[in-house]
Amino acid sequence: MSVLLDRLRAIVGAANVLTEGDLSAWEQDWRKRSRGKALAVVRPGDTQQVAAVVQACAATDTSLVPQGGNTGLAVGSIPDESGTQVLLSLQRLNRIRSIDAANLTMTVEAGCVLQTLQETARNAGFLFPLSLAAEGSCTIGGNLATNAGGTQVVRYGNTRDLCLGLEVVTPQGTVWEGTSGLRKDNTGYDLRDLMIGSEGTLGVITAATMKLYPLPAAQLTAWAAVPSLEHAVTLLGLAHRRLGPGLTGFEVMGKFALSLVAKHFPALRVPFADDDAVPYCVLLENSDSESEDHARARFEALLETAFEDGCVTDAVVAENLTQAHQLWHVRESIPLAQAEEGLNIKHDISIAVSRIPAFVAETDALLAREIPGVRLVNFGHLGDGNLHYNVQAPDGGDNKAFLRDHEDRINTLVYDAVEKFAGSFSAEHGVGSLKVDKLEKHKSPVALEMMRAIKRGLDPQNILNPGRVIRLA
Amino acid sequence: MSVLLDRLRAIVGAANVLTEGDLSAWEQDWRKRSRGKALAVVRPGDTQQVAAVVQACAATDTSLVPQGGNTGLAVGSIPDESGTQVLLSLQRLNRIRSIDAANLTMTVEAGCVLQTLQETARNAGFLFPLSLAAEGSCTIGGNLATNAGGTQVVRYGNTRDLCLGLEVVTPQGTVWEGTSGLRKDNTGYDLRDLMIGSEGTLGVITAATMKLYPLPAAQLTAWAAVPSLEHAVTLLGLAHRRLGPGLTGFEVMGKFALSLVAKHFPALRVPFADDDAVPYCVLLENSDSESEDHARARFEALLETAFEDGCVTDAVVAENLTQAHQLWHVRESIPLAQAEEGLNIKHDISIAVSRIPAFVAETDALLAREIPGVRLVNFGHLGDGNLHYNVQAPDGGDNKAFLRDHEDRINTLVYDAVEKFAGSFSAEHGVGSLKVDKLEKHKSPVALEMMRAIKRGLDPQNILNPGRVIRLA
Repeated sequence: MSVLLDRLRAIVGAANVLTEGDLSAWEQDWRKRSRGKALAVVRPGDTQQVAAVVQACAATDTSLVPQGGNTGLAVGSIPDESGTQVLLSLQRLNRIRSIDAANLTMTVEAGCVLQTLQETARNAGFLFPLSLAAEGSCTIGGNLATNAGGTQVVRYGNTRDLCLGLEVVTPQGTVWEGTSGLRKDNTGYDLRDLMIGSEGTLGVITAATMKLYPLPAAQLTAWAAVPSLEHAVTLLGLAHRRLGPGLTGFEVMGKFALSLVAKHFPALRVPFADDDAVPYCVLLENSDSESEDHARARFEALLETAFEDGCVTDAVVAENLTQAHQLWHVRESIPLAQAEEGLNIKHDISIAVSRIPAFVAETDALLAREIPGVRLVNFGHLGDGNLHYNVQAPDGGDNKAFLRDHEDRINTLVYDAVEKFAGSFSAEHGVGSLKVDKLEKHKSPVALEMMRAIKRGLDPQNILNPGRVIRLA
Repeated sequence: MSVLLDRLRAIVGAANVLTEGDLSAWEQDWRKRSRGKALAVVRPGDTQQVAAVVQACAATDTSLVPQGGNTGLAVGSIPDESGTQVLLSLQRLNRIRSIDAANLTMTVEAGCVLQTLQETARNAGFLFPLSLAAEGSCTIGGNLATNAGGTQVVRYGNTRDLCLGLEVVTPQGTVWEGTSGLRKDNTGYDLRDLMIGSEGTLGVITAATMKLYPLPAAQLTAWAAVPSLEHAVTLLGLAHRRLGPGLTGFEVMGKFALSLVAKHFPALRVPFADDDAVPYCVLLENSDSESEDHARARFEALLETAFEDGCVTDAVVAENLTQAHQLWHVRESIPLAQAEEGLNIKHDISIAVSRIPAFVAETDALLAREIPGVRLVNFGHLGDGNLHYNVQAPDGGDNKAFLRDHEDRINTLVYDAVEKFAGSFSAEHGVGSLKVDKLEKHKSPVALEMMRAIKRGLDPQNILNPGRVIRLA
């Protein structure tokens, strides 16, 4: 091992091979539920160094765990507890390589922080639409490795849909250069999309060419009270028809989720929070390539029709950016309010939009029946069929004891219901190490066997993030 | 072999195992440049029959060539000349399984003809935006297998971008059911995108869940004269900024390409064809979710700015649908006019949009220097960086002799130039058998080795469309 460490020091410099001191920033997961132990934290500075590090590890059969901003929610980017894995941090690969305005692309290194990319695009007069809670810390390499979602997916898709090309270091330590920025390229298998979402198990993403979009001329946000989840789905269809691609956000929030925000963050104004007759609220965002006046007229016409159709009972449109940010802030405060309320169980599920009302009605009833007193914190990206269908312990009880006694059972009930509705047990957070069992349980044997064949074919030594996503039999 | 044929007859019925008579509809390629010989043409009627056919072939080590509408341009879906391959026609799998309006999806079988899907969507009040020349004959299974492009890619992407899920029969004859219609699903490797564009070499696509979009309220078409290709690129950027996602088509056509249309189809009115000072024309399409009046006002404002900026010298906006169809008809008549002019050499290339003017200037000059008298028919989907950069023999010469003497050399010159500009030698037509050599020459060894590992891993018997796309070493 000391031979390997010497070799790694020779490649990246001694200062970038960390073996002592507090390594928790790399070894502990974002939600602080797991802690691993690395042989070393290795911080290469460019792609060639990444390739050399992988080669050195492959030569000694040492496995590597690639890591970006370490903000993942599925425990996929920290080392295991063996002390034998190299933690490969990509954070020093943080250069914007180029912006190509006419091609509407930028080529960036994996360690660039998402917010930096948003700002870089904006400064060049463009929109980079990927947006999610961890954007101040997460890196584009991690976003790509997990195919991150976020709040703009209804219009711009997941990270996958924003990527035109990748540069990847293979498990053999060779470099695949695929950052050409082409919008059409049908020359063989889609290696790009295979790497995206593979959570560092098939290759190490070192750079990417990402799509840019024109900045919208105006962006408006509205908050609408809906009489039921069915009505929220109807409103979504109406918004698609009326706004077309102008619909850039469509979030749903259940009454109890919003009541937690009102309870724990009394300074925030939660619209319609006091109205007991409002079971769900929806946050809509309208992006317009013309003007604010045009956006407002279109938005108000939509809401007027929605009133007439009975799928909205009350609504506010933000008058300015500050108000819009306040509305989004309420939505984004739900997970924090949940944490204030106490330990809870999170689910990141997706279902066909049309089946969400039936899923929620059935699963709400099932959980209420099976786990008396359980409280459901239901919110999410309804436009994408993605719910954060979370579970809070009964009011006033012992949260820790509740989780100990009921977490497994609740997960089984929820994920079995998701499978019954042909949904996904991980819509945007990935598999990591946390959901490897779920993958084996809920994915078809045919799909699992294909995944294993791909993993064996591309990484026969099984040195890249082994045991994550797909376990080899 | 007769044992296998008996088994196949038992699976699909004797009437659906064709071994005699005129089988050219399945054995000859679309452009009539190749003709294979099948052991039998087998026409299963459902997914289970497809699986059983693949199992029967696998048991006897008989390879299969999947085929949809047989309209491919890269000779990827006809059998080889050995008479030992089963031609697996998917045309009888032609049911619309379901339309889910609230989820904006339809689930369809592989053998559905593209135009049928467009019409089915329209009748349900939705847009299915995939559109290409062969839409009256090609099938969605073939579109998916080749990741077809077409004229709406600038807004809606390639076929890949329109697909949410697949049902696939593996090379082992098992069925992978993945047609859930989820917009977010991060549970393991992206098998869907691996299958899409793999041209039947990794699995047989039997059904798919495709995205639907709201029907636009209005669609307008304009034809603009531009002083250079650089100005066309500038106009594209302006159109993106002004129309945002309303820009659904952006085609460029060179003067000589249009002159061939005017020459061979004198009944068609080709705008600005007589103006020698117009080197390129652009066809723009604007789709609007509001109204025709709104669309027209936006479109005219865009063209006005373009005039002022000097990137457009003249323009017409179609007054009605008939005029719009006429303009598109001129664009779509270029390949037919080329055929009337005589044998020619086709290239389907892509380059980053920003580099297209330099590529064309340099490659035009190179070809003129190397192949005296050569005539360049340059047109394509500029919005996607995709050119059909075709080559016509010198005026009045012997076309056949020209192709015999110069085709290889011209291809080498063009594809080497494409590689120099980091482009693709096959933007939307795929590899098939026609471009296997090109793949080996122009793709990096690292990418080729990954593709081989995937093919070996998923199809270790090498029975699905062997030798197409990627040749195993």
